[in-house]
Amino acid sequence: MAKPCRCKKHETGCPIAFALDTFGDRWSLLIVRDLMMRGRKTYSEFLDSGEKIATNILADRLKHLEAGGIVGKLQDPKNRRSYIYNLTEKGVDLAPLILELVLWSAEHDPETKTSKEVVHRIKNDRDGFVAEIRSRLLD
Amino acid sequence: MAKPCRCKKHETGCPIAFALDTFGDRWSLLIVRDLMMRGRKTYSEFLDSGEKIATNILADRLKHLEAGGIVGKLQDPKNRRSYIYNLTEKGVDLAPLILELVLWSAEHDPETKTSKEVVHRIKNDRDGFVAEIRSRLLD
Repeated sequence: MAKPCRCKKHETGCPIAFALDTFGDRWSLLIVRDLMMRGRKTYSEFLDSGEKIATNILADRLKHLEAGGIVGKLQDPKNRRSYIYNLTEKGVDLAPLILELVLWSAEHDPETKTSKEVVHRIKNDRDGFVAEIRSRLLD
Repeated sequence: MAKPCRCKKHETGCPIAFALDTFGDRWSLLIVRDLMMRGRKTYSEFLDSGEKIATNILADRLKHLEAGGIVGKLQDPKNRRSYIYNLTEKGVDLAPLILELVLWSAEHDPETKTSKEVVHRIKNDRDGFVAEIRSRLLD
């Protein structure tokens, strides 16, 4: 069971503030990206991402994402000192948001490397794309 | 003309990292929310939001959003020492993302105050909702 998030900063009732309190900083969303789109699952795989997250920030953000019920973890059966992380259903529900980030950048980054096929898929088969991500991560 | 953003932290070519570099922290997105959904346009109106942003953070985030081409400003004709802020087209293009934040919280915040009508509208007439926001902010 996911623990309730105890890290609320904005108790204003605004749904946008609620979401941002739970996962709204660049490092948290890059961890969500790694789990959702890149098949990364371990602390060392997150550390190894191109953006070079610092160990203390990674540890802090993983703890925050766990507390918010976005990320879960299990002991690695091959190495009892390490964990395998996963997105919970609540975390996987961020897929449409992640796809919107991709679309926005594909439109506005003059040096975008996002393929036209991906943009076309998101624009024309968004629900199918989300369903595929859900099935890959939750089934 | 919007100035190019000079504040990139992640030069990895990832579209998600690009987007998060431009607006991806909770305070920036709360300013975008204020401009997009609440008709707030001035420094003091942003300061007055329920989340109680600190003046130095507000000044920093407005500067960053301007540098990223998300936000523009004009001198206030009624008070030449102050500015009226607005979302650029690039900023208004964040509307689908903001709606996804609302949907996610409506689903996952047990104390959500988002009305069922708004959730229904986003789910069933998303394009119409986005078009309405665009027309209100850009026409």
